[in-house]
Amino acid sequence: MAVAISLPRLRAHIEALSQFGRNPDGQGITRSCWSPPHEEARAWLLARMKEAGLTTWVDEAGNTFGKLGEGGPTVMTGSHIDTVPQGGSLDGALGVLAGLECLHTLREAGTRTRRPLTMVAWSDEEGRYAGLFGSRAFTGKLDARQIPHFKAADGERLVDAMSRAGFDPLEAPKAKCDPRTLAAYVELHIEQGPHLEAARIPIGSVEGIVGNRRSWVTFIGQADHAGTTPMAWRKDAFLGAAEYALAARELIVKRGGGKSVTNFGRIEVAPGVSNIVPARATLLHEMRSLDARILSRLDTQCRALARAVARRRGLRVKVEAISQSEPVRCSKRVMQAVEAACDGLGLKYRRMPSGAGHDAQNLASVTDSGMLFIPSRGGRSHRPDETSDWKAIERGGNALLHTLLRLAG
Amino acid sequence: MAVAISLPRLRAHIEALSQFGRNPDGQGITRSCWSPPHEEARAWLLARMKEAGLTTWVDEAGNTFGKLGEGGPTVMTGSHIDTVPQGGSLDGALGVLAGLECLHTLREAGTRTRRPLTMVAWSDEEGRYAGLFGSRAFTGKLDARQIPHFKAADGERLVDAMSRAGFDPLEAPKAKCDPRTLAAYVELHIEQGPHLEAARIPIGSVEGIVGNRRSWVTFIGQADHAGTTPMAWRKDAFLGAAEYALAARELIVKRGGGKSVTNFGRIEVAPGVSNIVPARATLLHEMRSLDARILSRLDTQCRALARAVARRRGLRVKVEAISQSEPVRCSKRVMQAVEAACDGLGLKYRRMPSGAGHDAQNLASVTDSGMLFIPSRGGRSHRPDETSDWKAIERGGNALLHTLLRLAG
Repeated sequence: MAVAISLPRLRAHIEALSQFGRNPDGQGITRSCWSPPHEEARAWLLARMKEAGLTTWVDEAGNTFGKLGEGGPTVMTGSHIDTVPQGGSLDGALGVLAGLECLHTLREAGTRTRRPLTMVAWSDEEGRYAGLFGSRAFTGKLDARQIPHFKAADGERLVDAMSRAGFDPLEAPKAKCDPRTLAAYVELHIEQGPHLEAARIPIGSVEGIVGNRRSWVTFIGQADHAGTTPMAWRKDAFLGAAEYALAARELIVKRGGGKSVTNFGRIEVAPGVSNIVPARATLLHEMRSLDARILSRLDTQCRALARAVARRRGLRVKVEAISQSEPVRCSKRVMQAVEAACDGLGLKYRRMPSGAGHDAQNLASVTDSGMLFIPSRGGRSHRPDETSDWKAIERGGNALLHTLLRLAG
Repeated sequence: MAVAISLPRLRAHIEALSQFGRNPDGQGITRSCWSPPHEEARAWLLARMKEAGLTTWVDEAGNTFGKLGEGGPTVMTGSHIDTVPQGGSLDGALGVLAGLECLHTLREAGTRTRRPLTMVAWSDEEGRYAGLFGSRAFTGKLDARQIPHFKAADGERLVDAMSRAGFDPLEAPKAKCDPRTLAAYVELHIEQGPHLEAARIPIGSVEGIVGNRRSWVTFIGQADHAGTTPMAWRKDAFLGAAEYALAARELIVKRGGGKSVTNFGRIEVAPGVSNIVPARATLLHEMRSLDARILSRLDTQCRALARAVARRRGLRVKVEAISQSEPVRCSKRVMQAVEAACDGLGLKYRRMPSGAGHDAQNLASVTDSGMLFIPSRGGRSHRPDETSDWKAIERGGNALLHTLLRLAG
């Protein structure tokens, strides 16, 4: 094996970054974008990037860059350094620090590439204020008029958080890139699922990132006295929602092409008291698929199912779309580079979709974009006990290194 | 027909009482116990009772009495003048004002009875602070130590509401009656269900008041990423709760002796976000039956069902009882008096249970207690459009009058 990353240095960086925002008593890491721990982590990261000999800058959206080599177009790699509340030490951090490690390794080794290499940490991937914020700004998907409306679930406004961190929020759209300066983007991430670990395969070659449909499905019945109204006369909105959820899950499992998933993350029932038959039940229904046609068909079939359940139970139903994203296919060129790198290193890989969203899906609109995964222990993520093995991390780092070498020529 | 009530007077009283606490714009009547509109209604009622020639008093629990005749034991009739928020004009008010009308009629007619007659309006039947509060105090079921803890759903304390209305809350247990002073209790009420109207029968002879079981049923699974976790690996607490609710309903309908009912009035799911599989789902489960053995068996069967659903889905489940009441059988002597009165008046009646709780269930522990129902239009109650027909009300008033005559001898 020719050039290889330094696992001790990468491990020291992962462990050092994990101290920013660490909660006491094993409650994981809370490092929301723009928060003091996040800004301290950014300063620490910039210092490490300079140590590695990179040219560094931060754009108007808070994306933090480090470049090795001059001119363009450049091959990019990266991820994010913000976390969910009580998150783990690898989601995002791995992709950023492995990117840094690859560039550091190449600079130390004096390896020359045809194209320059750039690593990046994107802002607010986890979406305390607005998911994938940094890569949205970079790829020109951010409308300045939206910015004053972005808010955290606790009501804190993005504009206040950005201002406190020293940024001018209304300048963020200026982070928009010129696609001609980009050659490719590849992101290393933990799988956040159990497939690779279960199959004992070290690398996932990501084929695409699933699209999703989120909607509020509301069944409307009648609020009757739950003691005096005969069972057969009731129009119970909750029982309609329960039947719909069970049947929609079956539909999506059986007719979703084997890989579509669905979730009912929230339900609200009104009036919500013991002795009144629920007049209203609202489900937050989400479904995801890598296949745009399947996703669209499932969405239509679920709407028909909701109407059928409502009709059978004497209820009304309305389905309100909240958000939708289309599946994104990864670049064939990036997948081939990942797979050739794995072959060169003697690492098995498996093609797989990403069930979660990532900045790579935004990059796909401006350049050849792709991802590679390493196993997540127990499939866990967004939790304090999110982890992988150091050997797995080393394999992932080297697979990324050789993918970058292939892409940068 | 010998003696009969005056429908014009009863109607005028019902219409006058319905003005206390009436909300604008057809939003019904909000007359919670101890509130200013309730206290104004009490003063109005006391004036009407004095006009009818009754001896009046208010006890330490706020129960308002009017007596015709001297000594004891006395035959009692009554109900309550508090309402649910946005309630109707008959629930409670009918029983109080029909009782007043009966006593007024007998005094005007100079009809002598062997036993004295007493009408009563019980405090807080609807339970803004504590359901059936007045009849609990009267029948010795109120523990003074509980009183400081009684609170409305909005946090207002009973002790503050009672103090504002001029009562000393800690004195309420002194309202406890001496059962030897009582001969019987009979309460006229709207059915709050659709059976009498559907069968075109003017009077329900109430056989008993259902008992209930209320519990929190909590399914516990695992909070996984809803995009990346394979469907077959999930431990979705919400889907467990949905399956349980549908199956428990079927069980109670099919094995509940034909008259048991059940409701899931509330459900809470955690962590409650779109992209996380629910780790926890808690149902508020209520069931009611007139048969104590059936109720107890259904409770046991539902617990077993919850465990079976949990086991099949890799979940855990816990069932926490919130409250339970046993079914109360109405006094045979009171039922016979109701039915003989109907026969005498040429009114059809049907024996039926009460699916809702009433003060009569507390009175059953101190005297012969029973109820009679008149039809509810469309089965509606606890709503602004709760109503009956004036003819139905007149029939009910006369059935009550002749029941009282039979009981008072």
